[in-house]
Amino acid sequence: MILRDPVHGLVAFENDEEKIVEELLATKELQRLRRIRQLGLASLAYPGADHTRFSHALGTAHVMRLFIARIRSIHEELPFWQRLTSERARDALAAALLHDIGHGPFSHLFETALPGSRAHEEWSEMIILSPQTEVHQVLVRYDPSLPQRVVDLIHGRHEIAYLARAVSGMFDVDRCDYLLRDAHFSGVNYGRYDLEWLLRSFRLAPPLNSGGTPRLSIDGTKGLPAIESFTLARLFMFQQVYFHKSGRASEYLLTKIFTRLAHLLNEGRRIAGTPPALEAMILQQQPPGSTTDLDHYLRLDDAAMWTAFADFQEAEDPVLRDLSQRLVPRRLFKSFDLFGDDATSEGKARILRIAESLTRETGLDPEYYCGLDDPSVQAFDVSKDPLTVVFPDGSERKPSEVSFLLNRLSGQTLSRPRLIFADEIRAELYEELGASRSPEAAEQFPSSGNEGTLAGGSFSLPSDQR
Amino acid sequence: MILRDPVHGLVAFENDEEKIVEELLATKELQRLRRIRQLGLASLAYPGADHTRFSHALGTAHVMRLFIARIRSIHEELPFWQRLTSERARDALAAALLHDIGHGPFSHLFETALPGSRAHEEWSEMIILSPQTEVHQVLVRYDPSLPQRVVDLIHGRHEIAYLARAVSGMFDVDRCDYLLRDAHFSGVNYGRYDLEWLLRSFRLAPPLNSGGTPRLSIDGTKGLPAIESFTLARLFMFQQVYFHKSGRASEYLLTKIFTRLAHLLNEGRRIAGTPPALEAMILQQQPPGSTTDLDHYLRLDDAAMWTAFADFQEAEDPVLRDLSQRLVPRRLFKSFDLFGDDATSEGKARILRIAESLTRETGLDPEYYCGLDDPSVQAFDVSKDPLTVVFPDGSERKPSEVSFLLNRLSGQTLSRPRLIFADEIRAELYEELGASRSPEAAEQFPSSGNEGTLAGGSFSLPSDQR
Amino acid sequence: MILRDPVHGLVAFENDEEKIVEELLATKELQRLRRIRQLGLASLAYPGADHTRFSHALGTAHVMRLFIARIRSIHEELPFWQRLTSERARDALAAALLHDIGHGPFSHLFETALPGSRAHEEWSEMIILSPQTEVHQVLVRYDPSLPQRVVDLIHGRHEIAYLARAVSGMFDVDRCDYLLRDAHFSGVNYGRYDLEWLLRSFRLAPPLNSGGTPRLSIDGTKGLPAIESFTLARLFMFQQVYFHKSGRASEYLLTKIFTRLAHLLNEGRRIAGTPPALEAMILQQQPPGSTTDLDHYLRLDDAAMWTAFADFQEAEDPVLRDLSQRLVPRRLFKSFDLFGDDATSEGKARILRIAESLTRETGLDPEYYCGLDDPSVQAFDVSKDPLTVVFPDGSERKPSEVSFLLNRLSGQTLSRPRLIFADEIRAELYEELGASRSPEAAEQFPSSGNEGTLAGGSFSLPSDQR
Amino acid sequence: MILRDPVHGLVAFENDEEKIVEELLATKELQRLRRIRQLGLASLAYPGADHTRFSHALGTAHVMRLFIARIRSIHEELPFWQRLTSERARDALAAALLHDIGHGPFSHLFETALPGSRAHEEWSEMIILSPQTEVHQVLVRYDPSLPQRVVDLIHGRHEIAYLARAVSGMFDVDRCDYLLRDAHFSGVNYGRYDLEWLLRSFRLAPPLNSGGTPRLSIDGTKGLPAIESFTLARLFMFQQVYFHKSGRASEYLLTKIFTRLAHLLNEGRRIAGTPPALEAMILQQQPPGSTTDLDHYLRLDDAAMWTAFADFQEAEDPVLRDLSQRLVPRRLFKSFDLFGDDATSEGKARILRIAESLTRETGLDPEYYCGLDDPSVQAFDVSKDPLTVVFPDGSERKPSEVSFLLNRLSGQTLSRPRLIFADEIRAELYEELGASRSPEAAEQFPSSGNEGTLAGGSFSLPSDQR
Repeated sequence: MILRDPVHGLVAFENDEEKIVEELLATKELQRLRRIRQLGLASLAYPGADHTRFSHALGTAHVMRLFIARIRSIHEELPFWQRLTSERARDALAAALLHDIGHGPFSHLFETALPGSRAHEEWSEMIILSPQTEVHQVLVRYDPSLPQRVVDLIHGRHEIAYLARAVSGMFDVDRCDYLLRDAHFSGVNYGRYDLEWLLRSFRLAPPLNSGGTPRLSIDGTKGLPAIESFTLARLFMFQQVYFHKSGRASEYLLTKIFTRLAHLLNEGRRIAGTPPALEAMILQQQPPGSTTDLDHYLRLDDAAMWTAFADFQEAEDPVLRDLSQRLVPRRLFKSFDLFGDDATSEGKARILRIAESLTRETGLDPEYYCGLDDPSVQAFDVSKDPLTVVFPDGSERKPSEVSFLLNRLSGQTLSRPRLIFADEIRAELYEELGASRSPEAAEQFPSSGNEGTLAGGSFSLPSDQR
Repeated sequence: MILRDPVHGLVAFENDEEKIVEELLATKELQRLRRIRQLGLASLAYPGADHTRFSHALGTAHVMRLFIARIRSIHEELPFWQRLTSERARDALAAALLHDIGHGPFSHLFETALPGSRAHEEWSEMIILSPQTEVHQVLVRYDPSLPQRVVDLIHGRHEIAYLARAVSGMFDVDRCDYLLRDAHFSGVNYGRYDLEWLLRSFRLAPPLNSGGTPRLSIDGTKGLPAIESFTLARLFMFQQVYFHKSGRASEYLLTKIFTRLAHLLNEGRRIAGTPPALEAMILQQQPPGSTTDLDHYLRLDDAAMWTAFADFQEAEDPVLRDLSQRLVPRRLFKSFDLFGDDATSEGKARILRIAESLTRETGLDPEYYCGLDDPSVQAFDVSKDPLTVVFPDGSERKPSEVSFLLNRLSGQTLSRPRLIFADEIRAELYEELGASRSPEAAEQFPSSGNEGTLAGGSFSLPSDQR
Repeated sequence: MILRDPVHGLVAFENDEEKIVEELLATKELQRLRRIRQLGLASLAYPGADHTRFSHALGTAHVMRLFIARIRSIHEELPFWQRLTSERARDALAAALLHDIGHGPFSHLFETALPGSRAHEEWSEMIILSPQTEVHQVLVRYDPSLPQRVVDLIHGRHEIAYLARAVSGMFDVDRCDYLLRDAHFSGVNYGRYDLEWLLRSFRLAPPLNSGGTPRLSIDGTKGLPAIESFTLARLFMFQQVYFHKSGRASEYLLTKIFTRLAHLLNEGRRIAGTPPALEAMILQQQPPGSTTDLDHYLRLDDAAMWTAFADFQEAEDPVLRDLSQRLVPRRLFKSFDLFGDDATSEGKARILRIAESLTRETGLDPEYYCGLDDPSVQAFDVSKDPLTVVFPDGSERKPSEVSFLLNRLSGQTLSRPRLIFADEIRAELYEELGASRSPEAAEQFPSSGNEGTLAGGSFSLPSDQR
Repeated sequence: MILRDPVHGLVAFENDEEKIVEELLATKELQRLRRIRQLGLASLAYPGADHTRFSHALGTAHVMRLFIARIRSIHEELPFWQRLTSERARDALAAALLHDIGHGPFSHLFETALPGSRAHEEWSEMIILSPQTEVHQVLVRYDPSLPQRVVDLIHGRHEIAYLARAVSGMFDVDRCDYLLRDAHFSGVNYGRYDLEWLLRSFRLAPPLNSGGTPRLSIDGTKGLPAIESFTLARLFMFQQVYFHKSGRASEYLLTKIFTRLAHLLNEGRRIAGTPPALEAMILQQQPPGSTTDLDHYLRLDDAAMWTAFADFQEAEDPVLRDLSQRLVPRRLFKSFDLFGDDATSEGKARILRIAESLTRETGLDPEYYCGLDDPSVQAFDVSKDPLTVVFPDGSERKPSEVSFLLNRLSGQTLSRPRLIFADEIRAELYEELGASRSPEAAEQFPSSGNEGTLAGGSFSLPSDQR
């Protein structure tokens, strides 16, 4: 199997150990990812960002292939029982390909938007372990214990520690692919880093103690620029794309549609156009985890949702109808960056109160028409991932000790607190808050710490989870 | 208005004459193009090719902006009454943006697949001229005669001949954008040419006779490599992407679903999941051109179709059900390149007969399960577009006289005749036709002339119309 | 005039105001820059970095052209007496093209290496003002006061303040070109930033007081990522290229050859192969600034130096001979990063003493065979260039207030202290200093402040001057 | 050993079999290639094209490394005695690195320009076989027969036929590198093709007869676009760069300087500034092939020549002085494309006679100041290299049978006949020949066959030898 990928160029899976990739790609569950956009609604802000979870899954498996090749080129650094056998390589490829198999419509948005829904990781686990799925059937054909091993790998658990880290860690194959992919499709060139050098910079440090295992680490002589540029690429992508104001505002709008829909269905109303699978999920008519439940979930994709939203534009309920009439032809909510005093807990609460009051006066329900959005991300998080930089003499140092840039970014939090509101209150809001806070007033602000989100109308989209 | 486009980089429309772009982009009808993929089903072969008609419309307007700037930089070559006034520039931008507004789901496929449907150009015309559309309302706000002028421009008619050619000609802004865009998203780098040099190579040749107008032409001192590489980029994209065997096979499958659906509906059957708008269109319950008719059309997009196909997987009709169960999880038809004797009219007829017979024996209906596909394209078509190359002394020559490459390609036809068939007959088919014709046997063959397509099961997708 | 530049693509100077570029390019003095490499000896570390000052001069003029176009697109922000007339544009293009006209062989290295020589800025001034040069003759043909105006612009002095800043400032056209150019030719992709967005981000802020002039500033809504990525690109280029250890070690070697040559000539020795012009300069046989002096200078280029070094390989003087026999076939000095205690003033002095002692024991002269190299650069220097970020409501903020990244980099110094030494003492040196300090032990270290360079054998190459 | 190359990215030679690369790179003879530009005087037309033979040698070895990896990934297609052992890989890397070691100043130009000089291939052979060179010493340390084996490989002779073809054939590693490299540095993007896919397209076809060896061939299912785009890239580079009119005109000028210098030296004149090594070579004071002879040759590089030309600007001989005063500050000869009747043998003779007569009238010597240039190249030469395209069923076809493009280009000759002349006769020449033939009148013309070059003042630079 050989194909062209706009991000990685020639992508091929041809060896015996790679055959599993082609078989998994042919399953219904993976093909479904063709109908789920990688970045939810980001294409409303970046018109090129229509790429799918399918292409990302494929790219992630490709990066895993490159990672495996890199590890094998330094096999002599490993004790033989820690080397990458064909079986381990195959398992790793399967995990890379399937790591996001459980995503619902609009990727991360679905689980956030749907009250009480399961996280996509749980869905991934169910899909892989459930005997009814084609994915499961492919895996067990190789080895009855493979589905569980793949689930473990996705959760970062494996006897080969460095392999677990490659699936889920600071520089894992998932991030390696999505940064490049999201950059290519959004056109935000800042997200490009040098994958070839990053892979080349991986080393294996000896176990810390006698019972330990070799640890993934960074080559001190050549590897620093690679991880520096990776870190900056990630930071730029958060600033430019993942935290983009129009993108976040449209995601807010979408979650409110789901909230309203769930509210109405739970009140016993019938909403024309609701996909039966979605209705069943919301009403939890099936015991969670049942076969029917999973079957419902797998019927949902972006197409089903857009078709539903199109129908909701004619719903009886005025809130659902109005919100849908905004989303479909892209008449988005506005947003407003908060900084200085406005970005403190008190400030945010005060601003939100003003917005809620204005929203109410316009005849709109503040629960649906305004809120706070407060995403944040660690620029370089050393606590979770105690990666070291290894020098030829065997000495190890922390990245922040040997890198000028990582030293300055280590432990720093980037946050982008914003008020989101309907266009109807824009004029009054600026009058109330002072002229200088025009909506275009600022794209970006320095982080002022992440002091927690408000309980009220605040927006709980995950920020550091891509 | 300023945004990032992965193909062109910074895209901005900020002057007064460009304001119309932002206003048109905000209309429902243009926003609908966000839900129509530019290349139909090509992403089944090229996993990155999920880009939409919306991003192409935007890119086309951007190229028009560059074209306008180029023409103005050589304004002194024009008599004053042929120069680009602000009004003409505005009209041209609107036409560039709207040139594809009438596309249905899956772009070109829809009109091909749906028996008796209107061509997308007609839909474009209706959308622009109908007082009910937001697009029309934006246009008339500028000038009551603007809608008609835009329609004329799209059809290549305008008092400024070179402007009409820029909207519809050999090197028009539509082609300029889609070659680069399709290359970027499919990853087929061969499709990249140098847009900056192409624009720079445009000149204006004096009228041929006293009543004539200046003609778009190519600068003989610097412009040839630009048009050569454009021509080759286009040829490569046809070879690699537009005529790709998996892409064509999936398009064939999709047209058969539409054919079957229309057949069933016309027999009076009700098919669950059929979008009401589609059903109405197929049954032609409205007089063509009526407001309702257009309203139906505008409700259709890729999402609505995929949702329908998902439902059709459970249709009662075995053919519709089976075909949908192939398309949704990508279990495509196979194809088989024809060349030598097989590519003659007689050869094609013979091969098709064999395939039909084998298909029938397997219990499948040959009308739906096999056929001929015979796309072709002119490598460099001089007849339609008598473009000349102009030298400093004013002399003019044909491109094929001054270019080594265009000389070799001029008037040549690339064709890719193929048999399409269900996987079920594969083994028997090869046995019957001889071992050497394995399905992977050839990606590409030299054109053997384009001797016409067969009436029978042949596949009538447009070839040279992108 | 139109040509291809690998960095900027199509480069054209065609308008009347741009005609001066073509005329200046045809002068002997500019053609001489074809024989001076842009990065001195950097191609010894980066095999592609053989680009010349000539291509950089051309690229700088091209960026100035883009800058002029950007300013004109926001002309309405300026009072009419501050707008860019054709004359001002012409002057700015000339200054951009000529800003480095005074560089000697190996660019910055020559003035550093040659004891008592004039700075390249002085040479630039002489070349522009001297009636004997072709450059001067072109300029005065336009306007007798043009040479002086160009000199002023190069020094950052001009009635139009923003124009002066574009020639010499934090984001000047010189830096804009060389970062991209050095990245393209060295292959260090990290040096790429988005020039198009940077130019688009320029705004003009109103004068600070009644007698003031509009100030170059950054657009707060869209401009931050552009200046952030520019700043990081610059930092990466310093880390990776300008401070590269092999590059710096070879530059050290070259300065020692010049030092030795000057020493010998001043002792009255004749050294075969010394270019007469160089000999005259070193012996200062002409009153500085005399016509003959300039004439001598203009005869020197990289070719003349390499030819001389080739001859010096057979010099009688053992030091000159040996150093040349190292440089020509690239047998470079080694270097050794200093950090922690070693990077303090005391540490550096101590390390240098050890190296000098070992060098002496090997029979080599420590003055020529070892030394300290201590380059440093400000990551984002706000003091020199009080650039502000301007928001739509007219409010202004410092970049470090509104940018997460610039906030972390503002006022920070990157330094790379190193010991440079002959390969002959390598083994003893490591033994003396401890095994962990192997020469490959570290490519990069965090800055530990820049505590001044030692008087002794320290290496005084300019660090923040490119 | 690991480094950055702007063309290939990360370039590393780290395995045991690759160690020879690092050792050869450290030799004087390879380091000398740092001072020889890859494209002679092309940077006079393309200001970025200052790259050296050294970077090309390195890039060629890198492509060989990729080729070896590709062959090993299909090792199972080979009988064991035809596989790439470590020794064979090492030999191939050495041959790739050394294939151009014998180039003189200005690459191909030197041997052309210097009457009676040896071809660079002969010099390569001498350098590799001569016990005095460092290159030889490195090679024999591995194996006393290695120098001869490397020489054989460079000439395309080896027991492993496909390896010989990779060093010298239609798609050899030399061409693979220089097309990409010359494109990167000149900025002519048309020269870029997809190296990764080209390598992937290589297959090994079985021997044609029982005593034969496996043959390098092209994969019929995926490989055609790769060789098509390679072929077109090469054609574009010839059209745009290698046959560029300013480039050819400056090369003509340079050969005339050499001709004049040789003439004067042979008359017994002493010319100040002539490098002694060059003088000795021209006067053939050493028996060809002697140690001294080689020693002289290795002292010559671009730097030595430019230094000499600078001195020649003050030569007593008026012709040598004048020609040098044109070359150094780039005051080149003009040229004039010939086509139609002018491009026939008679036409060329006639045009040359006119030019010679005008040149003589101006007081210039026609032997030095005008001439014909008539370069040509085969677009796709099948005769030399009977490469086939192999399909999965084992059938083989000629590229021109299965590729639309190669079919149209096969056996076609691109030629660019031109008259070269001094600027002094320009006006009279156009008057004489008719207004329409202005010097800018045409950049490119279709080939009109290659009817041989005239004996007289014709220019005998090699055309198809890069």
